[in-house]
Amino acid sequence: MLSTLIELQRLKRLDRTGWTLRGLPNGTESVAAHSFGVEVTAMLLADHCTARGVSLDVEKVLRIALLHDWAETRVGDMPRTATLYFGSEARKQAETAAFADIVNPVDANGSYANLYNDYERRESLEARLVKAADVLDLLIEVLALERVGARGLDEFWEVAEKPDFNLEGAAEQIVQELLQSILNARSELHPNV
Amino acid sequence: MLSTLIELQRLKRLDRTGWTLRGLPNGTESVAAHSFGVEVTAMLLADHCTARGVSLDVEKVLRIALLHDWAETRVGDMPRTATLYFGSEARKQAETAAFADIVNPVDANGSYANLYNDYERRESLEARLVKAADVLDLLIEVLALERVGARGLDEFWEVAEKPDFNLEGAAEQIVQELLQSILNARSELHPNV
Amino acid sequence: MLSTLIELQRLKRLDRTGWTLRGLPNGTESVAAHSFGVEVTAMLLADHCTARGVSLDVEKVLRIALLHDWAETRVGDMPRTATLYFGSEARKQAETAAFADIVNPVDANGSYANLYNDYERRESLEARLVKAADVLDLLIEVLALERVGARGLDEFWEVAEKPDFNLEGAAEQIVQELLQSILNARSELHPNV
Amino acid sequence: MLSTLIELQRLKRLDRTGWTLRGLPNGTESVAAHSFGVEVTAMLLADHCTARGVSLDVEKVLRIALLHDWAETRVGDMPRTATLYFGSEARKQAETAAFADIVNPVDANGSYANLYNDYERRESLEARLVKAADVLDLLIEVLALERVGARGLDEFWEVAEKPDFNLEGAAEQIVQELLQSILNARSELHPNV
Amino acid sequence: MLSTLIELQRLKRLDRTGWTLRGLPNGTESVAAHSFGVEVTAMLLADHCTARGVSLDVEKVLRIALLHDWAETRVGDMPRTATLYFGSEARKQAETAAFADIVNPVDANGSYANLYNDYERRESLEARLVKAADVLDLLIEVLALERVGARGLDEFWEVAEKPDFNLEGAAEQIVQELLQSILNARSELHPNV
Amino acid sequence: MLSTLIELQRLKRLDRTGWTLRGLPNGTESVAAHSFGVEVTAMLLADHCTARGVSLDVEKVLRIALLHDWAETRVGDMPRTATLYFGSEARKQAETAAFADIVNPVDANGSYANLYNDYERRESLEARLVKAADVLDLLIEVLALERVGARGLDEFWEVAEKPDFNLEGAAEQIVQELLQSILNARSELHPNV
Repeated sequence: MLSTLIELQRLKRLDRTGWTLRGLPNGTESVAAHSFGVEVTAMLLADHCTARGVSLDVEKVLRIALLHDWAETRVGDMPRTATLYFGSEARKQAETAAFADIVNPVDANGSYANLYNDYERRESLEARLVKAADVLDLLIEVLALERVGARGLDEFWEVAEKPDFNLEGAAEQIVQELLQSILNARSELHPNV
Repeated sequence: MLSTLIELQRLKRLDRTGWTLRGLPNGTESVAAHSFGVEVTAMLLADHCTARGVSLDVEKVLRIALLHDWAETRVGDMPRTATLYFGSEARKQAETAAFADIVNPVDANGSYANLYNDYERRESLEARLVKAADVLDLLIEVLALERVGARGLDEFWEVAEKPDFNLEGAAEQIVQELLQSILNARSELHPNV
Repeated sequence: MLSTLIELQRLKRLDRTGWTLRGLPNGTESVAAHSFGVEVTAMLLADHCTARGVSLDVEKVLRIALLHDWAETRVGDMPRTATLYFGSEARKQAETAAFADIVNPVDANGSYANLYNDYERRESLEARLVKAADVLDLLIEVLALERVGARGLDEFWEVAEKPDFNLEGAAEQIVQELLQSILNARSELHPNV
Repeated sequence: MLSTLIELQRLKRLDRTGWTLRGLPNGTESVAAHSFGVEVTAMLLADHCTARGVSLDVEKVLRIALLHDWAETRVGDMPRTATLYFGSEARKQAETAAFADIVNPVDANGSYANLYNDYERRESLEARLVKAADVLDLLIEVLALERVGARGLDEFWEVAEKPDFNLEGAAEQIVQELLQSILNARSELHPNV
Repeated sequence: MLSTLIELQRLKRLDRTGWTLRGLPNGTESVAAHSFGVEVTAMLLADHCTARGVSLDVEKVLRIALLHDWAETRVGDMPRTATLYFGSEARKQAETAAFADIVNPVDANGSYANLYNDYERRESLEARLVKAADVLDLLIEVLALERVGARGLDEFWEVAEKPDFNLEGAAEQIVQELLQSILNARSELHPNV
Repeated sequence: MLSTLIELQRLKRLDRTGWTLRGLPNGTESVAAHSFGVEVTAMLLADHCTARGVSLDVEKVLRIALLHDWAETRVGDMPRTATLYFGSEARKQAETAAFADIVNPVDANGSYANLYNDYERRESLEARLVKAADVLDLLIEVLALERVGARGLDEFWEVAEKPDFNLEGAAEQIVQELLQSILNARSELHPNV
């Protein structure tokens, strides 16, 4: 178990390349810190969904959020443009294989690999909710950076214009409400845009 | 929900003072990155426990690990010595009150506050397992830092000498096994110590 | 003497949490760097006061400015919100006790402890002048950060609206003049606010 | 021309993931700083080769050294393990395509693309000399890091054990001499290893 | 050769003081990263010049760009104001002497020293083109920093108002075109200035 | 007064080049943090001297310690090797002129300039005591860095072998005692050296 933990430890120091490639200082956000943000967002969303009657396996939500970026210890935090050159299918296969190798010593029954595959394919509602949390945590981070003066991050907001979370009912509504309040907060920050 | 998420976002950048006060570079580990490490450790431990027949609510383990340091957005990451001057009871009360205020907008039924109180008092088995994961993640971090050359961190290993995780049966055994493999890895690093 | 010096050395690397909790990069300002800024400000203010006839013990001003944050090596740089949860009296007691322990090996006659107590209670004119320098250095830092593009620091300027330095005569006037020139410099920076 | 320059500017801030994944602080070495090191090494090696009668196009050496990592602005600095999962051929193709897109606005006659392809295939002597400089700069960096206390970088030295620079004659000899003096300097650093 | 390479390695970590003195974070740009930027700019400019019929020794351009800041390992990256107090002649002499000592072990025929002297005196067209690239890379860096939110860097743009590159014909035109496109990009960033 | 304070503010972020040129991370120690360390050391030494009957103007000690590095906002933190190339007399003149310009708006009677000149020439006992504190703080910093694993800093300890503080009587003795305890602490750290 220790070798897996030591390897995942590395995500604590791996910078998200999205920030450094845009000229923000090193140390802006590590992959581990982002995973924490995704998980917090996912838990609050999931509990809200449950409260409004959505049937949801919250434990599964928490597990997927926790492990969704583990492959990056071996593949790195590839910038979005990298996918253009490798193809999204090749990227998915590489990350899936890397994930399987990482968890191999601790995944006797393959349950971690199953959760990862579910996430990669957005099969379950839980996987799609984590993906929504992944996007929303990104936007909250952008908002936080803009609040302390960062600029030049407009391209991230384009994601927010045509979000396809592929949820439905109350889950979709709850995610949209949070998205809307993020967009409102941004409007207050840049009233003239 | 957004105001809570924005506040918790701050943990992504808050340095663990244990490292900076000992002279390690800023950015060594954020509170969010540590929380991620604790949660990974807790999940692997918990799944191992379940596999060996321990009756355990893994969702609860994941929830407690995720939220156990949230109070630090308001109280800061107080160094261990601070407790000597405030008293551990005052510290516990302050952190509990801060936690309650942070989650107030999203904790209609008080379930987050209950989990936090459980953790602070180490009442449930799940809470005690997260505490063990908190200690083990710290030791793995120290091991990782020593592997890249950091020194002067001996005092952290004293914790490992007389660990009182207050677990029992297979859970205790599993935690002790992980602790032992950490200690072994350290011995290999410093064969003459 | 060495053990005290080594302990105080730690302030060189301890980040001021006010900046990191607001999302500014690690390394923005250490407690030691802030202490330097407070002392420079205090000396210039004190010399100006003396030149205008205020009776003042400048050596005492310099001593208080130098030592006013030493307790933070043991208690940490607690964010302002922490005081809400601990109470300002408990905080003062904890910091006073920590300070006494830190200087114990070098404070045979208790003179450092006396200066610290004076500062904590703002008893002497010298202590109040250092407190003013502490606030003014903070505002100059905020101004410097805003000049290089930082935003979201408005709450710090609220301090400047109702300053209660509790000085009088020429000392009050000199401090107010500096405060006013800081506010003017800020107005030039944000002409439309 | 400006859009290309702005894009390549990003390499100034992109951390080499080899260091951060091993736990060294962010900011240890940027891709641009590494490129500078490779080019300095390549020029000194090339001039030495010429002085010993090797026929070499030094301008070509300088050009290849300068541009050999440009693709990383779009593909990122992928860790070595990433190649295991993508395959070295896919990686080469992706980087070649990314490079072509980056230089497209300034490469009317395809000469930059040709140099890049040459380097990727190690066709010319000049390309192989730059590859040697790439490895040697890495080892000098590791040596420099170990000199200030870094540890846990042994795996980098394995590269040095079976180097296949595929050079010949005086060029091979000069490269081996530099490699040997690096290894000697390392032996002095760790006399007991 | 190794001792020279190890010494030049230091430029990878030496911050450009222009940024830190203005309050930008440490790690904004190293001297090595800047040298990389200057060389990229110089190569693109030189190739453009050649394409338009300017007679130019591109290898010489690349060599000068690569070595133009090496003296800073011994003299440091002196802020512009330092020249006011030392005098530009004394600064030139000191840097020239430092450069000669640095390259001494690898500069049997004095060719590096000659290139450096040429650059310091802007004698050749190649030297003046590198100086233009040095200024243009600075402006592109300022532009990149302003795009992510940095402010307070107006004084750097004053350089751009009265540039005296001392080139002529197509070379002057090409440099002016790049300068103009930088200024245009900046105007788009701050439309109201 | 504000323009002087804003200029001196810059020392909070200016890295000591001694560390970065040796490969330690950016942010290891700012000039302001070092000044704080010197002043703490100087005050403890001075108070100790007074207690043992040395006649000393402690206010003057504090003033000199506070301002001894102010010239660096204009001249930079020049590495020791820079003095070899500029000459120590030229360096002294440049720094003295820079200092005079910095304090000009606040130094009506020239008292700051006098203190600076005194320090540069080591005329008074107070100036020599601050110089001793400057060296001792450097050694304590090296000790602190070595304790967390830094290596390759041996050349700093050579200073400690032949210290010429040019003090006498109890002052010399007190400084030597502190030096000796620093050397002892280092011996404990590296028992085999």
